[in-house]
Amino acid sequence: MSLTLKPHFNNLHHHHHANKNIILNNKYNTNTTCFSTKVGQRNIYSTNPLVITTTRKVESRIMQGGEKIIIKSSLIEPDGGALVDLVVGEGERGAKRVEAESLPKVKLTRIDLEWVHVIGEGWAGPLRGFMREDEYLQSLHFNSLRLNDGSVVNMSLPIVLAIDDETKGRIGASSNVGLVGPDGDFVAILRSIEIYKHNKEERIARTWGTTTPGLPYVEEVITPAGNWLIGGDLEVIKPIKYNDGLDNYRLSPKQLREEFDRRQADAVFAFQLRNPVHNGHALLMNDTRKRLLEMGYKNPILLLHPLGGFTKADDVPLDVRMEQHSKVLEDGVLDPETTIVAIFPSPMHYAGPTEVQWHAKARINAGANFYIVGRDPAGMGHPTEKRDLYDPDHGKKVLSMAPGLEKLNILPFRVAAYDTTENKMAFFDPTRSKDFLFISGTKMRAYARSGENPPDGFMCPSGWKVLVKYYESLQVEEKAQQPAVLST
Amino acid sequence: MSLTLKPHFNNLHHHHHANKNIILNNKYNTNTTCFSTKVGQRNIYSTNPLVITTTRKVESRIMQGGEKIIIKSSLIEPDGGALVDLVVGEGERGAKRVEAESLPKVKLTRIDLEWVHVIGEGWAGPLRGFMREDEYLQSLHFNSLRLNDGSVVNMSLPIVLAIDDETKGRIGASSNVGLVGPDGDFVAILRSIEIYKHNKEERIARTWGTTTPGLPYVEEVITPAGNWLIGGDLEVIKPIKYNDGLDNYRLSPKQLREEFDRRQADAVFAFQLRNPVHNGHALLMNDTRKRLLEMGYKNPILLLHPLGGFTKADDVPLDVRMEQHSKVLEDGVLDPETTIVAIFPSPMHYAGPTEVQWHAKARINAGANFYIVGRDPAGMGHPTEKRDLYDPDHGKKVLSMAPGLEKLNILPFRVAAYDTTENKMAFFDPTRSKDFLFISGTKMRAYARSGENPPDGFMCPSGWKVLVKYYESLQVEEKAQQPAVLST
Repeated sequence: MSLTLKPHFNNLHHHHHANKNIILNNKYNTNTTCFSTKVGQRNIYSTNPLVITTTRKVESRIMQGGEKIIIKSSLIEPDGGALVDLVVGEGERGAKRVEAESLPKVKLTRIDLEWVHVIGEGWAGPLRGFMREDEYLQSLHFNSLRLNDGSVVNMSLPIVLAIDDETKGRIGASSNVGLVGPDGDFVAILRSIEIYKHNKEERIARTWGTTTPGLPYVEEVITPAGNWLIGGDLEVIKPIKYNDGLDNYRLSPKQLREEFDRRQADAVFAFQLRNPVHNGHALLMNDTRKRLLEMGYKNPILLLHPLGGFTKADDVPLDVRMEQHSKVLEDGVLDPETTIVAIFPSPMHYAGPTEVQWHAKARINAGANFYIVGRDPAGMGHPTEKRDLYDPDHGKKVLSMAPGLEKLNILPFRVAAYDTTENKMAFFDPTRSKDFLFISGTKMRAYARSGENPPDGFMCPSGWKVLVKYYESLQVEEKAQQPAVLST
Repeated sequence: MSLTLKPHFNNLHHHHHANKNIILNNKYNTNTTCFSTKVGQRNIYSTNPLVITTTRKVESRIMQGGEKIIIKSSLIEPDGGALVDLVVGEGERGAKRVEAESLPKVKLTRIDLEWVHVIGEGWAGPLRGFMREDEYLQSLHFNSLRLNDGSVVNMSLPIVLAIDDETKGRIGASSNVGLVGPDGDFVAILRSIEIYKHNKEERIARTWGTTTPGLPYVEEVITPAGNWLIGGDLEVIKPIKYNDGLDNYRLSPKQLREEFDRRQADAVFAFQLRNPVHNGHALLMNDTRKRLLEMGYKNPILLLHPLGGFTKADDVPLDVRMEQHSKVLEDGVLDPETTIVAIFPSPMHYAGPTEVQWHAKARINAGANFYIVGRDPAGMGHPTEKRDLYDPDHGKKVLSMAPGLEKLNILPFRVAAYDTTENKMAFFDPTRSKDFLFISGTKMRAYARSGENPPDGFMCPSGWKVLVKYYESLQVEEKAQQPAVLST
């Protein structure tokens, strides 16, 4: 199978690499040469969502500014009525870059860049840039934004850019700034900026519902950040690429909507995940499809949508997860014909009920009209106490009541566990609870780490092998890092 | 002037007391004998809001459950469309009390009882009891509740009742409980209860935007509370009275609406306060009235609405404030003909932008259609850092964007300061900022404490005397409490 790669789909080298070896260090690789050629390429997925042949455009009319305009829309209207796309056309990029060079510069971290990606492609629409204070306060207090027409969209996470005193001083009275990626390249211009205080304590408390030390996003992003936030309108002058072999799975909301249309989906159900897919997940996804068919839908499509941005150190890295997912599809545990695998570029906050709203809202913009919510979504253990950070039921409850998400169909996750009488993952039956074995993420990692096999039927064998290989390589690395003195 | 007192307006004795002496210890006095008679009474206020002669009912039609029903409504619809009144009729009280005695008992603290008062009279409507988990989560995450008809009302503070493990155990599977006041009397029944976890850390973080030690409401109410919350529908079987001489200023939303109608108000502007009124406040209130007249209103009425529930130790106690306010009216600094003074029974959270929404929302239910918001509303100093706990501008901003408050007219506070060129309080003019003297609450207290007079024109002299007398008595008390050994 051959695939026309655009200049920025330059992932041949890393792509193969990702499939042959497990990349342990999932850092940005910015020195990769770009390929701009027609190449043969091995698909990791039986179904390659990038092979877009024809695009059946489904049009709907919406009112905007009193005038009827036509926008592309499939099964669900994007928040704010129109998809946001802030990437400037190729013809303009040169001039914008020259302009950016003339402006005060703001240096982005790796995670800031992920947010430029997220905002620029319209996942956070109608947001058109990093939040100004009005948006920030609404997000923090109401988890939603009220638009000029009085309608409300969900916006549960503050999407903000922090700067330090020195940068604020350099910006002075300028109304626009140039955003510089970690590799030194100009990636965007932020226009009509507004600078306001970054009260970290308040931001953390209202977003996480705790200020306990040890929250991964806080330690990685907020604690080291400056004491000011800078909001404004974003113009992306260089599409964000990671050159990790996976860029062609980073489909924008626009590309996903086109793909759903191409497949003539009449329902799209999104499954957000940051973990390997076991047969319990697969059971749930297949069961959801069955239920949608029973409801009368003819062609429900699953968007299997692993999160691709920042994750905490002990989560399985994206490339390993992607390879594991590919095995699940190759093994037919999930049906390649009715599944699209793509990467959601957002970083992870681990902010439980607050974050799950963001995960759902972004999928509205990507065209999914059904969202599967699990137990304790975006949750983790409390960093300092022996309990879950969030009540495992709160995510589902908060999501079902969240402002701006009324148009999305929320599908609560049915609990699956290992049924020891049938030796397979099955929906938990409380009347015979002793027959069921719960295999937590921690338990699963312990199996993989020790090389022990989980019970038959927990995960497809080829997917399991990917994990075992990853944990073996971790142990090799750990051993290599042990000081010699310890082994004498 | 004579006034018909209902049995529960039994404040003759304490009322006089409050005017002759400053009550230092503003504790509940539950042993007072009740008077049920026609008595002559000295008014502390030139305008006594309780003298209700005729009630002009302003009716409006709303849709409820598909049927047109007529409810009483003055200038602004109560949240949810109808005023909530959960106090059972006198004829039913005996039977309800007998029922309450047969139920598992939940003992209320002084502040729980303030909330029973608040909920029972409909300040928190459409809330009809202590929050169940769905309401609690919406309040915590969205500062609002979505009603069955899809409309949204503001609800920024969790209004909850905590119980401990022992009480939870005693309740068992009962669906109703009896609520017992601090004096041992049954005050209410809570029906169709739901018990859920009280995650104090999360509640505090999301309500205050900080978990710093030293938040007054947290230390007084939440830290000592149990690890469970109990929600349900409230039936108040004994109207809440404080017997502190001020109960006849505790007008319910219904009484206030009736009074506004009686006065034929065509606009009501509410001023929430927990501090003495100085001439800067008065300037603002008088200026607001002038602006409303200019806007075409013929009879704008000021609701001067001091908060009467829990306040922190260094705030001026309610009875002293009430006497100070009475002097301001007697001196004509505020016009008694167009002012109603009443007590807002809510306890204070000091939760800044979150709490100011509650303060505004409750006044909608009381019939005010204009709300004056000041600098740093419901704010205080950070307990452990040398700064305001909240950005002083956030309260006003958050209030103006808050869900469910769209129908309320928000009037931002213009900053007043002491104009040294004119020796009076005047609106601050930044072009001649050096002429202005800012007299903070701390500064004001320091003046009163030292017996020093503030600049002429800062506060009416008779009002100032009330404060000086209070601080003098405090010092006498402090001296009396010093151990003798220190004075040797």
